Amino acid sequence: MAGPDPALLSVNTATVRAQWRMPQIIDALVRHGIRGISPWRDQVADAGLKDTAARIRDAGLTVTGLCRGGMFPAEDRAGRRAALDDNRRAVDEAATLGARCLVLVVGGLPKDRTGRVISKDIAGAREMVRDGIGEVLDHARSAGVPLAIEPMHPMYCADRGCVNTLSQALDLCDELGPGVGVVVDVYHVWWDPQLRSQIERAGDKRLLAYHICDWLVPTTDLLLDRGMMGDGVIDLPLIRGWIGEAGYRGFHEVEIFSARNWWKRDPDEVLMLCRERHQTAG
Amino acid sequence: MAGPDPALLSVNTATVRAQWRMPQIIDALVRHGIRGISPWRDQVADAGLKDTAARIRDAGLTVTGLCRGGMFPAEDRAGRRAALDDNRRAVDEAATLGARCLVLVVGGLPKDRTGRVISKDIAGAREMVRDGIGEVLDHARSAGVPLAIEPMHPMYCADRGCVNTLSQALDLCDELGPGVGVVVDVYHVWWDPQLRSQIERAGDKRLLAYHICDWLVPTTDLLLDRGMMGDGVIDLPLIRGWIGEAGYRGFHEVEIFSARNWWKRDPDEVLMLCRERHQTAG
Repeated sequence: MAGPDPALLSVNTATVRAQWRMPQIIDALVRHGIRGISPWRDQVADAGLKDTAARIRDAGLTVTGLCRGGMFPAEDRAGRRAALDDNRRAVDEAATLGARCLVLVVGGLPKDRTGRVISKDIAGAREMVRDGIGEVLDHARSAGVPLAIEPMHPMYCADRGCVNTLSQALDLCDELGPGVGVVVDVYHVWWDPQLRSQIERAGDKRLLAYHICDWLVPTTDLLLDRGMMGDGVIDLPLIRGWIGEAGYRGFHEVEIFSARNWWKRDPDEVLMLCRERHQTAG
Repeated sequence: MAGPDPALLSVNTATVRAQWRMPQIIDALVRHGIRGISPWRDQVADAGLKDTAARIRDAGLTVTGLCRGGMFPAEDRAGRRAALDDNRRAVDEAATLGARCLVLVVGGLPKDRTGRVISKDIAGAREMVRDGIGEVLDHARSAGVPLAIEPMHPMYCADRGCVNTLSQALDLCDELGPGVGVVVDVYHVWWDPQLRSQIERAGDKRLLAYHICDWLVPTTDLLLDRGMMGDGVIDLPLIRGWIGEAGYRGFHEVEIFSARNWWKRDPDEVLMLCRERHQTAG
């Protein structure tokens, strides 16, 4: 299978977050001929929202998503309302940045203010997620910002996201109606026996973003040991083929959290490799 | 909800494998009034198969399963044939021990002889698993040993088991016919939005074993950081209720791999806690 169009490469700013702040990342993407960016809100806030939006616009980059909204479940009404307020702010930031979607990491079991999980009611958490997205949806529609539910790998079910399969995310989309779609991040879904059929089910209308990296064997940390494309076991060209068959024509966004490796490297080397591996392994 | 019948407690020998060898474990289970045991093959081999079978019989323990067969995918025919031979030996050992089932950890992507994953073809690996179980099934039926497919948490898909949901395991059962069922291990399946409906689908006929422990937040190791019942986030009484509604009347087997905690404790304390937590949190 031929390599993908290099113009479709996007880089999630988490990939070089340990080395660079936002202005450096934007400059570097331009320098490396990378045309898409997907920033994290804390990195944007650090550099200033308006400044970042202007820089990205001036650089001619496409904002393939803003990371992240979500984290809806909470122990009480005040906590859930705070999450809704935060999500509405995230929608506004996504609109200011011209982001193609707001990525939702929906949250896991409810936590208390110290971050400790205080409930085992996973069905209840899933209801809070559905209700939370529903509450934010009007605001997102008005702002013209699609909400993109990112199904999370089941190992994150307790503490990050209790929507764990593409099928489950699409059921939510069906229930919530227009303005909500999905992110397919290969790291979260590559193992799913239903992946192909659910990508087909999603179709172009629901597929709002496509994230790539690789699953390493062994994986030494549940959160911060993602691999560069080609270094792991995910058949990326196969999944890219399915995404294409479903009609997706958007960007391929590299998102790598890697405390032991890529966050310790020269970030220019990391971006060069992102370009190269996108072509040879993506 | 009332606690479960203490007579249904079984302990998987991996739970105290760092501290004790097989004869000590058998003696200790009797001492603690625990009536079920589920041994690992290497621990049995270490103590001798016939001696272990005699000791377990004399102690009046029920062998709730033998761990484990499986690991079917391999890089070539010779590797796959070696796996089949090993599985037939495992069936024979299970028969000698009077085990209620042989637990299958089916294997992930094919590896070479050094243990390195050499393929990204997850669909192909799944076919090797189906074919492998099919090849062993006649022998297992003749020996009167049910094969119990254990769906593995998706984080083990690459290297341990590419059957990752109860639904997928039950599809395999449907395809393979009598003599094959499933193990429900809460650690692997607790996150699954379809868990309740798939337990109902399994029914008593397919539910061959029920394994308990807990999912810790945070989890610091993908393999060896399981929690004691009550220390994590799994709603064990809820899942036990579903298992009961499906007609399961078998043992509740505690299986905890815990390098940083339980494997370092006094094993008598571990067994005491298994008994206590089975009642209060199981």
